[in-house]
Amino acid sequence: MDRRVFLTSLGALGASPAPRGGIVLNEDSNHYFSSRAGQRLSASEVSAFVDQYAGTQVRDLFFNVNAMRAGFPSKTRTSFVDGYEPKGPDSQEMFASVSAAEAKGARAWVHQAWQLRQDGIDVYALWLERARKHKIGAWVSVRMNDLHNVDDERHYLHSAFWRTNPELRRVPYRQEQRDRALDYLHPQVREHNWKFIEEVAARYAFDGMELDWMRFGFHFAPGREAEGAQLLTEMHRRLRKLLGPKRRVAVRVPSRPETAQRLGMDAVAWAREGLVDIVTPTNFWRTVDNDMPIGLWRRLLPSAVTLCAGLELGLNAFPGSVAAGGRPFQTNSIETVRGSAAAYLVQGADRIYLFNYMDSQTAMDDNSTYPDLLREAGNLASLRGKARRHVVTYQDTWAPGEKAAYKLPIEAEAGRWFAVRQPVGGGAASARVAIRVGVRGADASGWEVRCNGARASFERVETELKPGPNTPIYRYAVPLTSEEAVIDIRPASAGRVEWMEVLVEPT
Amino acid sequence: MDRRVFLTSLGALGASPAPRGGIVLNEDSNHYFSSRAGQRLSASEVSAFVDQYAGTQVRDLFFNVNAMRAGFPSKTRTSFVDGYEPKGPDSQEMFASVSAAEAKGARAWVHQAWQLRQDGIDVYALWLERARKHKIGAWVSVRMNDLHNVDDERHYLHSAFWRTNPELRRVPYRQEQRDRALDYLHPQVREHNWKFIEEVAARYAFDGMELDWMRFGFHFAPGREAEGAQLLTEMHRRLRKLLGPKRRVAVRVPSRPETAQRLGMDAVAWAREGLVDIVTPTNFWRTVDNDMPIGLWRRLLPSAVTLCAGLELGLNAFPGSVAAGGRPFQTNSIETVRGSAAAYLVQGADRIYLFNYMDSQTAMDDNSTYPDLLREAGNLASLRGKARRHVVTYQDTWAPGEKAAYKLPIEAEAGRWFAVRQPVGGGAASARVAIRVGVRGADASGWEVRCNGARASFERVETELKPGPNTPIYRYAVPLTSEEAVIDIRPASAGRVEWMEVLVEPT
Repeated sequence: MDRRVFLTSLGALGASPAPRGGIVLNEDSNHYFSSRAGQRLSASEVSAFVDQYAGTQVRDLFFNVNAMRAGFPSKTRTSFVDGYEPKGPDSQEMFASVSAAEAKGARAWVHQAWQLRQDGIDVYALWLERARKHKIGAWVSVRMNDLHNVDDERHYLHSAFWRTNPELRRVPYRQEQRDRALDYLHPQVREHNWKFIEEVAARYAFDGMELDWMRFGFHFAPGREAEGAQLLTEMHRRLRKLLGPKRRVAVRVPSRPETAQRLGMDAVAWAREGLVDIVTPTNFWRTVDNDMPIGLWRRLLPSAVTLCAGLELGLNAFPGSVAAGGRPFQTNSIETVRGSAAAYLVQGADRIYLFNYMDSQTAMDDNSTYPDLLREAGNLASLRGKARRHVVTYQDTWAPGEKAAYKLPIEAEAGRWFAVRQPVGGGAASARVAIRVGVRGADASGWEVRCNGARASFERVETELKPGPNTPIYRYAVPLTSEEAVIDIRPASAGRVEWMEVLVEPT
Repeated sequence: MDRRVFLTSLGALGASPAPRGGIVLNEDSNHYFSSRAGQRLSASEVSAFVDQYAGTQVRDLFFNVNAMRAGFPSKTRTSFVDGYEPKGPDSQEMFASVSAAEAKGARAWVHQAWQLRQDGIDVYALWLERARKHKIGAWVSVRMNDLHNVDDERHYLHSAFWRTNPELRRVPYRQEQRDRALDYLHPQVREHNWKFIEEVAARYAFDGMELDWMRFGFHFAPGREAEGAQLLTEMHRRLRKLLGPKRRVAVRVPSRPETAQRLGMDAVAWAREGLVDIVTPTNFWRTVDNDMPIGLWRRLLPSAVTLCAGLELGLNAFPGSVAAGGRPFQTNSIETVRGSAAAYLVQGADRIYLFNYMDSQTAMDDNSTYPDLLREAGNLASLRGKARRHVVTYQDTWAPGEKAAYKLPIEAEAGRWFAVRQPVGGGAASARVAIRVGVRGADASGWEVRCNGARASFERVETELKPGPNTPIYRYAVPLTSEEAVIDIRPASAGRVEWMEVLVEPT
């Protein structure tokens, strides 16, 4: 085999890196049913859903086809509409465990799913086809251990397999949410999910399949994850064989390599064995993680593997944090996504993966900028010259027995220095940079604030920043050109720091 | 070039991995002077110091030749004995800043160093020669930023360069210990240290040189470490050129790859560029780190690079922890070193690096087992079948602005589960395993303790365990065969958990 042929065949096997940049977007399995509830939809209206992503930076659309139940009439597991009586009341058996208000909403989207099925419309099949027409990568995404509403054993989202096999759960001696996940150490659990994978692979025409191990990220009895990792690697070997050389494989895994491995999701091993083409480290849900070790991932993964930085929709500073206006949860805005994306692209991410960034409902608090987001977030070139915010958040996924470390809140004491580090993507020489610090219970205007050693100067107090904290925000100007900011503060008085960010604005 | 020749030349370049196993031992620059103070030593007595390591698992002896001052008469920096008046009193100018008691001890060891110099004895040169005779690797180790006693500007350990250049320190706006380290962003600092390296390389005949970046581990202004990393990498390029193809290079760096990089010590980059042959991740000082990500390091480093797990002498559970008997500090014992070593060898460490494990004074609290330690700790085969203790400790080195995470203490609440994960080296199927939990302020005999899901049974209360906590210890029996233990506990009452360990005993 001469060198040229050898390189060509490597390319055919997916071993040559794809060009950098672009967005992967995940559309979940029932957002469409829910957001379009009450409408009677035609096949062409369903297909047209994809058109909003054409001509943007979205290179791949990942259509999620299941939670615990399947989004299509499955032969291997319960489907969303199984047990639904279209002529029954909202209070019918399927919805008996939830409140009247939830039952009304649930019934509406389940009815939509039912109606589409009655009309012979498979939304995922139509979308995959339309994506290919637009030359957008057409993927299916399979959630491997969804746990929505497991605190309610009778909830309408649950599969019969999960309901009837409580002995297959990962922590039988306790009943917290993640304890109720199915334990892949059990061959029945692996087989149940494998059969579904086979079914999806046979049912749909796609460019690639994602196994979404981050829904919900816990797959093994605590402490037995090393054994478990072997089993998941074996499952990925089967998947590669099943899909063959032309269809690609993606995975979502926890944001830090060590935690991923300690949860049994050894994405580095999968990648080095050639079993996966795209790896997406990500937080689980409540907030984007703005301090994932993307550079470390890049070093660990073969260069042929595409590394996506996984961005969740939420933007929340610490567990239990309260957002501007007293809300328990807030989402990113286009400025904060720009911050996350810029930092990760600088650190070596190939692409930005948007999860829960949908076109309505599960969407940014201000979704009017959604079209812009899809045209900016995937490339440094399109991010350049635009205001961006680098917000300190937290990591929400830890292996059992790992010590969770949250940067905020900080109980500041008078005269006692504290420091927080935040990647900021560098290249801020021609920009105005400000540090924002949200403080409860103190006037921080006279605090000594330094950024990478340079003394910052107090500018003003801001309020009602969105997204932002439910505290006054003290804003300080500072020069900054490094890739990371170490914000070093000596408080003049005691207070509780609930928010920190670096704002980079074009001059 | 045929395959055989190719492999041979690779070997000559140090690219073929050395066989696994063995111990690296670091002897610090003044321990010998101090521990032999008051004796008049001959050259052969000095050389004989090395003999205790012959016939053990010690494959390499790293002779440290400096702190901030040099241990030999240096042309490029202050030496230990500079300014010493052999006929002067203990209270002479050199020791004027310390207490009378400290001055007496200091003067005794400085006098020993002076006397040896008077007698024409260079201890490091003799040791290097003797080590080679024993076919033990003969190394010099250079501390790159030592900070002993920097809270006292006039202390007798300080170099003139440090004393007279306060503007070259890394955090000029603050005066904590690590703030006073020299900042390698300044070319004068790099040149000062580079000239010393050249001097050491010219003065001594050695197999390799270690740059000990973990004395004391902080080399750059906060937030500017990415720039700094480039400079240290450049220094390592110079070092490789200086030493040529036959002399090897080792480094000590922080225990986690990301923290090492964020402190400007990018050992992975050095290794991938072929600039270093041995990499030793390690804690700084107060305790051995029993949860270093050695498997992650192994994946990041080229296989030709020897990975040492760096073990510090101390064994302490958390910052401020109090040891058995009320002591503020305690050391490892042979059983706890066995635990650390076994776990790290299983995780892929090539060798065990002992720091501060010297033959007296800076030594294990019970150093009667020192000869056994040197014959056991470097290989799984010699560790097998012996009792070992896997103690939960903490990581003492964090980049500025990183969130430090300590597993202990835990303020346990009645009914509220908590979990701690500890690597245990696996292979405990034919052993008796016990969990030990040190609890203050509660009777934990009735607590629900689980290990990797299995219910542990309370055995008894132990007291005065050494090393151990200053609390009663509750001991529970449990089966265990995994490489990691997740100890999951539901307290029956509130208490403060100050110690956790997994004991593995042969049956």
